[in-house]
Amino acid sequence: MNKKLVTFGEVMMRLSPPGYLKFSQANSFELVYGGGEANVAISCAYLGMKAAHMTRFPDNALGRAATQFLRKNWLSSDQIIYGDDKLGMYFLEKGAVHRPSVVVYEREGSAFSKIQPGMVDWEDVLKDADWFHWTGITPAISEGAALCCLEAIKTANKMGIMVSGDINSRKNMWKYGKTMQEIMPKLVKHCDIVITSPRGINEMFGLGEIGGKLKNSAQELMEAFPRIKKVVGKKRKSISASEQEIQGRMWTGTEYIKTETLNISHVIDRVGTGDAFAAGLIYGLLHYDTDIEALDFATAACALKHTVIGDVNMVSLENIKSLMGGDTSGALKR
Amino acid sequence: MNKKLVTFGEVMMRLSPPGYLKFSQANSFELVYGGGEANVAISCAYLGMKAAHMTRFPDNALGRAATQFLRKNWLSSDQIIYGDDKLGMYFLEKGAVHRPSVVVYEREGSAFSKIQPGMVDWEDVLKDADWFHWTGITPAISEGAALCCLEAIKTANKMGIMVSGDINSRKNMWKYGKTMQEIMPKLVKHCDIVITSPRGINEMFGLGEIGGKLKNSAQELMEAFPRIKKVVGKKRKSISASEQEIQGRMWTGTEYIKTETLNISHVIDRVGTGDAFAAGLIYGLLHYDTDIEALDFATAACALKHTVIGDVNMVSLENIKSLMGGDTSGALKR
Amino acid sequence: MNKKLVTFGEVMMRLSPPGYLKFSQANSFELVYGGGEANVAISCAYLGMKAAHMTRFPDNALGRAATQFLRKNWLSSDQIIYGDDKLGMYFLEKGAVHRPSVVVYEREGSAFSKIQPGMVDWEDVLKDADWFHWTGITPAISEGAALCCLEAIKTANKMGIMVSGDINSRKNMWKYGKTMQEIMPKLVKHCDIVITSPRGINEMFGLGEIGGKLKNSAQELMEAFPRIKKVVGKKRKSISASEQEIQGRMWTGTEYIKTETLNISHVIDRVGTGDAFAAGLIYGLLHYDTDIEALDFATAACALKHTVIGDVNMVSLENIKSLMGGDTSGALKR
Amino acid sequence: MNKKLVTFGEVMMRLSPPGYLKFSQANSFELVYGGGEANVAISCAYLGMKAAHMTRFPDNALGRAATQFLRKNWLSSDQIIYGDDKLGMYFLEKGAVHRPSVVVYEREGSAFSKIQPGMVDWEDVLKDADWFHWTGITPAISEGAALCCLEAIKTANKMGIMVSGDINSRKNMWKYGKTMQEIMPKLVKHCDIVITSPRGINEMFGLGEIGGKLKNSAQELMEAFPRIKKVVGKKRKSISASEQEIQGRMWTGTEYIKTETLNISHVIDRVGTGDAFAAGLIYGLLHYDTDIEALDFATAACALKHTVIGDVNMVSLENIKSLMGGDTSGALKR
Amino acid sequence: MNKKLVTFGEVMMRLSPPGYLKFSQANSFELVYGGGEANVAISCAYLGMKAAHMTRFPDNALGRAATQFLRKNWLSSDQIIYGDDKLGMYFLEKGAVHRPSVVVYEREGSAFSKIQPGMVDWEDVLKDADWFHWTGITPAISEGAALCCLEAIKTANKMGIMVSGDINSRKNMWKYGKTMQEIMPKLVKHCDIVITSPRGINEMFGLGEIGGKLKNSAQELMEAFPRIKKVVGKKRKSISASEQEIQGRMWTGTEYIKTETLNISHVIDRVGTGDAFAAGLIYGLLHYDTDIEALDFATAACALKHTVIGDVNMVSLENIKSLMGGDTSGALKR
Amino acid sequence: MNKKLVTFGEVMMRLSPPGYLKFSQANSFELVYGGGEANVAISCAYLGMKAAHMTRFPDNALGRAATQFLRKNWLSSDQIIYGDDKLGMYFLEKGAVHRPSVVVYEREGSAFSKIQPGMVDWEDVLKDADWFHWTGITPAISEGAALCCLEAIKTANKMGIMVSGDINSRKNMWKYGKTMQEIMPKLVKHCDIVITSPRGINEMFGLGEIGGKLKNSAQELMEAFPRIKKVVGKKRKSISASEQEIQGRMWTGTEYIKTETLNISHVIDRVGTGDAFAAGLIYGLLHYDTDIEALDFATAACALKHTVIGDVNMVSLENIKSLMGGDTSGALKR
Repeated sequence: MNKKLVTFGEVMMRLSPPGYLKFSQANSFELVYGGGEANVAISCAYLGMKAAHMTRFPDNALGRAATQFLRKNWLSSDQIIYGDDKLGMYFLEKGAVHRPSVVVYEREGSAFSKIQPGMVDWEDVLKDADWFHWTGITPAISEGAALCCLEAIKTANKMGIMVSGDINSRKNMWKYGKTMQEIMPKLVKHCDIVITSPRGINEMFGLGEIGGKLKNSAQELMEAFPRIKKVVGKKRKSISASEQEIQGRMWTGTEYIKTETLNISHVIDRVGTGDAFAAGLIYGLLHYDTDIEALDFATAACALKHTVIGDVNMVSLENIKSLMGGDTSGALKR
Repeated sequence: MNKKLVTFGEVMMRLSPPGYLKFSQANSFELVYGGGEANVAISCAYLGMKAAHMTRFPDNALGRAATQFLRKNWLSSDQIIYGDDKLGMYFLEKGAVHRPSVVVYEREGSAFSKIQPGMVDWEDVLKDADWFHWTGITPAISEGAALCCLEAIKTANKMGIMVSGDINSRKNMWKYGKTMQEIMPKLVKHCDIVITSPRGINEMFGLGEIGGKLKNSAQELMEAFPRIKKVVGKKRKSISASEQEIQGRMWTGTEYIKTETLNISHVIDRVGTGDAFAAGLIYGLLHYDTDIEALDFATAACALKHTVIGDVNMVSLENIKSLMGGDTSGALKR
Repeated sequence: MNKKLVTFGEVMMRLSPPGYLKFSQANSFELVYGGGEANVAISCAYLGMKAAHMTRFPDNALGRAATQFLRKNWLSSDQIIYGDDKLGMYFLEKGAVHRPSVVVYEREGSAFSKIQPGMVDWEDVLKDADWFHWTGITPAISEGAALCCLEAIKTANKMGIMVSGDINSRKNMWKYGKTMQEIMPKLVKHCDIVITSPRGINEMFGLGEIGGKLKNSAQELMEAFPRIKKVVGKKRKSISASEQEIQGRMWTGTEYIKTETLNISHVIDRVGTGDAFAAGLIYGLLHYDTDIEALDFATAACALKHTVIGDVNMVSLENIKSLMGGDTSGALKR
Repeated sequence: MNKKLVTFGEVMMRLSPPGYLKFSQANSFELVYGGGEANVAISCAYLGMKAAHMTRFPDNALGRAATQFLRKNWLSSDQIIYGDDKLGMYFLEKGAVHRPSVVVYEREGSAFSKIQPGMVDWEDVLKDADWFHWTGITPAISEGAALCCLEAIKTANKMGIMVSGDINSRKNMWKYGKTMQEIMPKLVKHCDIVITSPRGINEMFGLGEIGGKLKNSAQELMEAFPRIKKVVGKKRKSISASEQEIQGRMWTGTEYIKTETLNISHVIDRVGTGDAFAAGLIYGLLHYDTDIEALDFATAACALKHTVIGDVNMVSLENIKSLMGGDTSGALKR
Repeated sequence: MNKKLVTFGEVMMRLSPPGYLKFSQANSFELVYGGGEANVAISCAYLGMKAAHMTRFPDNALGRAATQFLRKNWLSSDQIIYGDDKLGMYFLEKGAVHRPSVVVYEREGSAFSKIQPGMVDWEDVLKDADWFHWTGITPAISEGAALCCLEAIKTANKMGIMVSGDINSRKNMWKYGKTMQEIMPKLVKHCDIVITSPRGINEMFGLGEIGGKLKNSAQELMEAFPRIKKVVGKKRKSISASEQEIQGRMWTGTEYIKTETLNISHVIDRVGTGDAFAAGLIYGLLHYDTDIEALDFATAACALKHTVIGDVNMVSLENIKSLMGGDTSGALKR
Repeated sequence: MNKKLVTFGEVMMRLSPPGYLKFSQANSFELVYGGGEANVAISCAYLGMKAAHMTRFPDNALGRAATQFLRKNWLSSDQIIYGDDKLGMYFLEKGAVHRPSVVVYEREGSAFSKIQPGMVDWEDVLKDADWFHWTGITPAISEGAALCCLEAIKTANKMGIMVSGDINSRKNMWKYGKTMQEIMPKLVKHCDIVITSPRGINEMFGLGEIGGKLKNSAQELMEAFPRIKKVVGKKRKSISASEQEIQGRMWTGTEYIKTETLNISHVIDRVGTGDAFAAGLIYGLLHYDTDIEALDFATAACALKHTVIGDVNMVSLENIKSLMGGDTSGALKR
């Protein structure tokens, strides 16, 4: 039977000028939806897994439209809760070559940020799940979101469900009075798999060094939080906004694993590539026997996301397996 | 020399699905900007007047893009102030025939709502102005906005500038702790021209009757606020979302004036038609000798706005004069 | 608990030139999906009912995309079956005023047409259903589709589920060797509610007269097929491709009921208006106490569909109730 | 064998803001091509006639693209000549209801305006033709164009080809030093069929009265130019830019014929409706036995053009025959 | 006088999501037409040759629109035949970098596939032709198409017209009961020029080796089919879906010729590049004195096609000559 | 206080097929405006400078729309003059890889070309200006434009305003009877800064050699025109239409300065990159202490323009400083 993933977090409306237009040139915006955790759930759903995303939307026409985006992309929607009247939004002006993208958020006061512990029946939401995934963005949004996330993680622990956290959080998101240093340890200590970087480990937990080796930082993290079984990272080289390189890395407590480096020479959409990596990792660990295969799968998934418009990785299992198997030709098989 | 109008209020980004698509069908949004008072300023600018709009935008890429919309539409931008990070927004799903439009607002906490008295140098902003115009939406947004509006009105009074207010406010916008019954009288008592309806007069000031005659309600209003010289209304019949009828009405204290009824048989965009009426009234009163001409001008301007996409009336002086002169043929003159 | 509807039939990709362009002018096609029965299911889902549509799609990227359309529009997709490689398609060039629309079908040999009895586990598909709906298009497609439809109807009968059929079939669709006169009686005799017209009743069953009264034809039909409890019709007057009039009619065996006539003065999309009527009827009969309310609901739903792009009626319960209550103004309530 | 029409005149690129946007709102222009005479040729080609249009295009990428438009729309392109470097252009902002369309021309100095007598081998171009059609726009463009047109007409006379002229010319187009009063008589005297109005007859030839009856003016014209066999007019009532009424009229020298009035309640594109009338007249006179049938055909063609985007009437023979037969329902026949 | 090419084969409607969208993301499809042989004819027509394409279209609005595409692109349309009601179609989702394109065909039962020997008057179609070109796709479609193709080739032989075949066929297209091993030799033995690869030669004729040298395989082919004068190949390296390398190769029976390798670093549209090569070869052999010039021309044409949207190579003679001359700068000459 | 730049020259409407479509494929054109000198003014305005552009537009709807483009992009519009009826236009078909762009001009007889000395009050226009910039295109357009330009330059000299000229003119633009050899020396002798190339210096003034070193040619130029203080050039390598390399160069009379070479690997829009360089140079010389910083700034600005759609460089000061500081990563800073 198909494995099932549950994720939790905010889903935002994303509005972008067409193509490479700047904000000031746009007469229209292209519309998709995205959010770190939902991106992971959808990616896994496209690979054939069962997947559900837990979130809170405003109880209006925009909240319903956002729900329809999740349904269309193979997620179930029965568990979603509704209330208040603001949908989080972000505006993306896509960069190219030496010109960076511009992102403007309008997410403060969103329906999701007003979520409170007790609003979600986590045992029901996590029923039949094999894996629960969260990211460091959720606890940064509001105290309610952080507490809800903790509820979810603890329930998953109790139900014997694997927990992964992608915790490369952004410092300047934390505006509600708590710091990430206060909150993150409470969540991370219940995690089985952590995706992060030496910088993240240092900034959030004061361990390792910012410019240090993933292996060393990861080992310190695993000693501090003994539930963690693997620490996974992704080395990105930004040659330009239009060309990127990606390499997967993992410390298992005993082994340090690295993938080949994949070069993405013509970036179509860089947003959500980290989420595609996380989704690939989850799928890989659930479906492959070895860590290196799982990591290769994650890295190939990440590379392929750079060619898909939107926040979400919609490539097929066959696409990832082919790239993971070394075929970088992008050739059509008739 | 050209007459100059100054207006004050929030400008929002407006996002609409293309054509008659519903929110759930849209892959993109068409983007314009609008706000009751700025709409009036731009309308007058298209007719050849000098016009400036005073507002507060977020200090980011969206605030600059909104400013560029005002500049493009002939307003000056030097007086605009910037701060905070949220641009007010609204989403419009256009209706047809028996299906009403749907509007969703996301304006809470906007940069404009955080405006405070003292932030604007009104003497400078109103320099050379002949007319200042405000609407009942502004004092409904926040106490700061209401107080700023009062500052502006009083400064205009002091500088001998005509003041008009379009005060058909929406009750459920008032959420910051004051009611419109508390605030509106303070603003209206400094006005020379008021655009409203028997319902508005009754709900805001407890005068007249909701279903009563404009003449009677207006007379009571003028007695309560003796500065008011004319009370102007607009009778709309909504035959369907696609067909509307408009008639202008005015009580001057001594005379009750009505225009012909104009039928708009194929509505293109109904938003901002009230603002087009107000702009037409201001232009008319400044440029015609008689009240009936001014009112005819306002009504023709209002009718024409129904055929222009966006919040803003971009028709030419020639268009309005031609319709006001009775030519309803819409015929191209080569 | 919410009532549940199940429908069965082909879903086609619909491709239309933008706006009023003719085929020869188009550089692109707008893409939606539709099919008489799925349109009914989706309409009911937008009104809050649970709804599932049973169909067969090709096992390829187009079949998956069509499935995603159904999911997005609130239908479940677990029951859908896949096989072969052709998705039915139709091309629609929208007419206006005196210029009729042009429709070109490419549906021969579709995955749906190759469905065979035994492929569907109807007891499972109909579990928890309150109503099953089919149309006369399905048995016209292929013998397999006709037999599958019969399976479904009989299973519904056995499970005590209401069955409605919309049987205004098109003679020249029947190409597989059977005539509608042979097949339709076998299906209709198991139906509780039939939507049709005097012409349909005459052409399919040799009863009544083509130009006769619905009441008389319906009575003959109910005598021939005693399970039928109501025969429902819809009188349409096509003033032009851009203006239509609709009136609902019903014969209950004892009573002849007619609604007010609704005039749709600006048609946006005429396709699927009959399906919107059927959906309204089903919803109405399930949620209202009287037949006239159900018929008023159906007629209002039908009228509103003329203003929605695509095959599917996406209006809200509130929209229909408002029109059914006599408000034809299409006015936005803020 | 199919009848063949040859026409002569300028073809311009037409650029329009999408939908009902005004020039100042457009980020893009929709692109078609058109010209009074080519519009007639294409209309007839869509009805199954053979048709060729003679023109002169600039010898560059735009001239080739314009040629491709003619080819696509069933005209032959072998006879077209090339030279110079300017393609005539016009910009069209579409009006609605009381708002008139705006047209801006940029056609001065076009390749066509530089055409000179002797450049065209008219005997070759007119080979196998049954009909030659010109309009009053051509002689207004330049002396060369006027002389070329005269060459064509005289050659047609010599070859026994029917000649029709649509001579409702626009006074302020004549800028090259000759007046229409000087030039038009030289051309009209060789015509068999003239399409015009009492105003045109009066302004160009000093005959009849501007507000007079077509019959009287036409009779005077036929006396002055005895080759003319029929004078045809079209009475248009512009209820608004969105609603028009059309009636065909003809004086045959002995009989005055009028058609029913057709109401076009939802205008899609008003440009080229006169050309559609001329094309319908030519087709009608060539294919029907009676003048009233020809005139009915012309009027129906004209009415239908109001629903087609672009300058060109692309409706089918079946569309016209159906409307001419009295079916105004615009109903799709499946 | 201009050389004339005639081609024969199916033309399909091609539908693609805009830009790099995936099928599941598209609300619209971009529409062009294409088919291996028609692509060759149009390419040559853009270079100034006379060209006609023989095909069979459905006798409906789509068949007429497809015809208009060919006319627009400079082909004549008089010879095309019409019948049945299905237009072949294919759907293309464009890939990038490591993500391959996805193609879905819906061509079974098309009007073209139902073509039968005797339907085409080949002597008339081939009148004045200098060259006839076919591809291995045509005989794979249906037995009727294969026999018609043989008719055409034999007629060309009889009329002294050069015959080229591009025979890199796709095995899994052959579904009508004959294998390519049975059919292809009958066609190839009448060819003067063959475009293929060692794999094609081995799979179709059992000659040479799949991974062998073109020279050796070609030599065996020429010995088996002595009419063949040149065997031409194209070596492609797919660095990624976004970057390709192309090199032309030819065996003349006595000489083995290779061009420089051209790198296409930013692929815009990869479809039809092989047809562009074939067209370039035909043009080159007809207009250049040496084989190496013809091959250089073909390779440059092929490289340039990668930058043109659609199936068809629309570049100019000047573009190809410039690249063939070694100018890879893509620099605009003012 | 912010520095102020004034520029002078024609502004044209630019019309381009969407994306990489060729002219013959386009159903629509994307619309922007541009002109060498206005591009410079707008670039500087985006960097925070005050900027005005002096031009002459037709007195019609297109002239007003063009004005609105300048206003939107932060320029003032009060000084612009209006007259005649033609707006200059150019059509751009964007190339890729080996396929060059195609440009077609329709600018002859434009309102700007009819400008005459005395029409502009240069003292008023140049009030408060710190810098005046012109290009070699303006004197090539018409004698009036050349004389006006001379007026402007002399007035600037008189008012102590820096003058820069970008004089890489195009020989075949000079059609009004004067040669660039006659006119250019009169203008250049009043310039402080000249942007040009050895080819330009040789062709216009007969100095240096076409293939020579910038340093040598520049030195000769400075000797001939002693007011010139710096001669600046830009070395471009066109690897393909999709990849360019840029290096800035300057001769100060005593020092020869070169920047690093910047590689633009994915060109989005190559038009206006020279103007972006000029704007960067002006900004740099006004805001940096050293010539190398100014040149680095200019080169970075130029490189960034290749990624912005339209003629105009809309990047931010921060973008340029970041690239100038060596960060080529195009990475988004959150």
